[in-house]
Amino acid sequence: MSVTGSSFFASRWVEAPPHAIEASDGLLPLGFRAAGLHAGIKAGGVPDIGMIVSGATATTSAARFTNTGAQGAPVLLTRQQSQTSALRAVVANSGNANAATGEQGLLDAARMRAAAAELAGVEPELVAVASTGVIGVPLPMDVIEHGIRKLGPQLRRDGAEDFAAAIRTTDAFPKQVLLDVELSAGSVRLAVEAKGAGMISPHFATLLVFVQTDAVLDADEAALLLKVATQRSFNRISVDGQLSTSDTIVLQCSGVSGIKVEEHTDDERVFGEALDAALRQISLLVARDGEGARRTARVRVHGPNEQAVARVAHAVGDSQLVKTALYGGDPNWGRIIQAVGAALPGTAPLDVAIEIEGIRVCEHGGFVKHDAHSLEKAVQRDEVEYEIWLPGDGEVEFDRYFSDLGHEYITTNADYTT
Amino acid sequence: MSVTGSSFFASRWVEAPPHAIEASDGLLPLGFRAAGLHAGIKAGGVPDIGMIVSGATATTSAARFTNTGAQGAPVLLTRQQSQTSALRAVVANSGNANAATGEQGLLDAARMRAAAAELAGVEPELVAVASTGVIGVPLPMDVIEHGIRKLGPQLRRDGAEDFAAAIRTTDAFPKQVLLDVELSAGSVRLAVEAKGAGMISPHFATLLVFVQTDAVLDADEAALLLKVATQRSFNRISVDGQLSTSDTIVLQCSGVSGIKVEEHTDDERVFGEALDAALRQISLLVARDGEGARRTARVRVHGPNEQAVARVAHAVGDSQLVKTALYGGDPNWGRIIQAVGAALPGTAPLDVAIEIEGIRVCEHGGFVKHDAHSLEKAVQRDEVEYEIWLPGDGEVEFDRYFSDLGHEYITTNADYTT
Repeated sequence: MSVTGSSFFASRWVEAPPHAIEASDGLLPLGFRAAGLHAGIKAGGVPDIGMIVSGATATTSAARFTNTGAQGAPVLLTRQQSQTSALRAVVANSGNANAATGEQGLLDAARMRAAAAELAGVEPELVAVASTGVIGVPLPMDVIEHGIRKLGPQLRRDGAEDFAAAIRTTDAFPKQVLLDVELSAGSVRLAVEAKGAGMISPHFATLLVFVQTDAVLDADEAALLLKVATQRSFNRISVDGQLSTSDTIVLQCSGVSGIKVEEHTDDERVFGEALDAALRQISLLVARDGEGARRTARVRVHGPNEQAVARVAHAVGDSQLVKTALYGGDPNWGRIIQAVGAALPGTAPLDVAIEIEGIRVCEHGGFVKHDAHSLEKAVQRDEVEYEIWLPGDGEVEFDRYFSDLGHEYITTNADYTT
Repeated sequence: MSVTGSSFFASRWVEAPPHAIEASDGLLPLGFRAAGLHAGIKAGGVPDIGMIVSGATATTSAARFTNTGAQGAPVLLTRQQSQTSALRAVVANSGNANAATGEQGLLDAARMRAAAAELAGVEPELVAVASTGVIGVPLPMDVIEHGIRKLGPQLRRDGAEDFAAAIRTTDAFPKQVLLDVELSAGSVRLAVEAKGAGMISPHFATLLVFVQTDAVLDADEAALLLKVATQRSFNRISVDGQLSTSDTIVLQCSGVSGIKVEEHTDDERVFGEALDAALRQISLLVARDGEGARRTARVRVHGPNEQAVARVAHAVGDSQLVKTALYGGDPNWGRIIQAVGAALPGTAPLDVAIEIEGIRVCEHGGFVKHDAHSLEKAVQRDEVEYEIWLPGDGEVEFDRYFSDLGHEYITTNADYTT
């Protein structure tokens, strides 16, 4: 079974998982209900608070968080005081990150968690809290608590879209998918809702991402699958190289389908493939959104060791000069070799080769004659590929995906709070 | 003697050196001649090639270069094959960096050096070559050699301004100064000509900077003074965090004044102060130019050790989010703590304090009540100061200067080659 006709797996850099099909009924996996609505944190009546609840007592889960030193209160609370292997509910708001808010922030996050727990009918320790938006401003707790109470009657199996809308900040479009994954004993459903456009960085869990499935997974297995899929997706993208205070990804498995994903089986491989592809496509959507981005790029680096290829991929993907050239559709490959050299100080002269969209522009560190017209056309595409070969023995490869840097990013970010 | 009325030391972050006065006669230090003119590398008839020549056989010098792995041919040639402690002449062009140009680039740089050496009447090993501009395109050697020959009759003691014009690329304004430094035995002159606006990064020697003096300095002393002054100036600025292929700084001392700057004397301190202040002000001009920058900022970090304070200062100064907020005059201090946290992963919760223009906005990692109106006004200034205190014992301090990120930077860089 393949996803022929899928509208979701649109990037050429993600292979649609062969055993998954996109669902169009809008329904969350069995056992889950969700809602999102306008509480009043943001102006203009837009949705700003949401919840996802699993009704199954046997729900397992896994979660990963930003590793920044400046973790927001919801991250600190959930990481340290919630049971991340058995989360029944998540409550999330946009418009205010509840970060850099000190003791008051921790108390507020705990109040938010308690209100959500009451609504879900579970212990507070089984609830994850996530907040995104402006940093350094206390949460408006009356508004939040009132909003959570209003969520109660709204929770329903087709509420994923409303939830996804409620966690958006500068996102230009929503990011979600529903997949039916064909396992040996039948089909399980996998849902992902995510937000993210700015303050997107290369390290660890990134942005707010919520994943639900009705498959049965041990908590350890869920944690492992989430870790691997995160490393291959969100850890490889960059909009602006800025690690956030609030990044959180939660995977919840209600088990209500009764179909178990056993470790070390074909089913695990198939389920993992679907999770991996979904998170990779979502992460590319985040890079694509990239606060006004016009183009996305992949840089693939081949080299002698992990450290070198990762450093070069990060340097190229975070380079303001590479990113503005990408935005302008400018075939300025000199900025790529500049970034490569900057990432590997003290190695001059560096025997490096570079291809853009398969056109070799640099060999042994120097220019190669190429068809300038073809190159100019190639860099105008929506997705642009750079490939780099470093000198030295060894066959390590590293991919990084990133967005361009253009006027829309400046406009979005120059007056964010004012 | 002070520089009362100096128009050059305009930044509040550079103290005008007390024993130096700005000269207005436009004359280079004794022994030096310079010129700059349009050879034809660039379109539009603008100056694109220049030379500085010392007529004194006893000239000493020092030079520092970018430590990138992708050093341009002029850097490789000068560093490896010129006598950097006795440079008599420098030849520089803009419009083409002669970087990533392979073997041909090295041959071209050597031809350029030979032509300049012939004109100066010295051995090629006594000439430094510097090129700046587009990367990955071979130099137009006929144009270059013809241009160098045309420089001959133009060389004169008041040629610094023409030379400075010839090395400009995206610079919005020229960067040069002439200072008379009062030593115990009399006055010596110090001249600096620099270019730089983009691809400006935190490591080591940066951009093209040429310094001349008619004082007598041993080559070792010149090297030490240049190293210290570079570390305190160009190593502390960032426009876009991009280490260049071509950064070069050359200090030449003709000795023609006959006034010796002895090591470990008051004279050395006075001369060093003037050199230091001049290079710091020039480096601030580079950050200020910053390809369309509207504002510059200083971040000063206090903390327990060199590594932590430097990492935080770099993270803040290179943050696209901090830089866009600076551009917008947006008092969004949440982005500062975000950058601090990202620089110190795994340390949450982080006990950090932050002040903007002396207004305390964050303490113990959380917000502090402050006068929002005063803060809004403060961040609209041309120069904005951030001060950060990290937790831990120890009293290390680190400054970094950076420009904002705005529409003009995007416009400049999105279509650089096309």
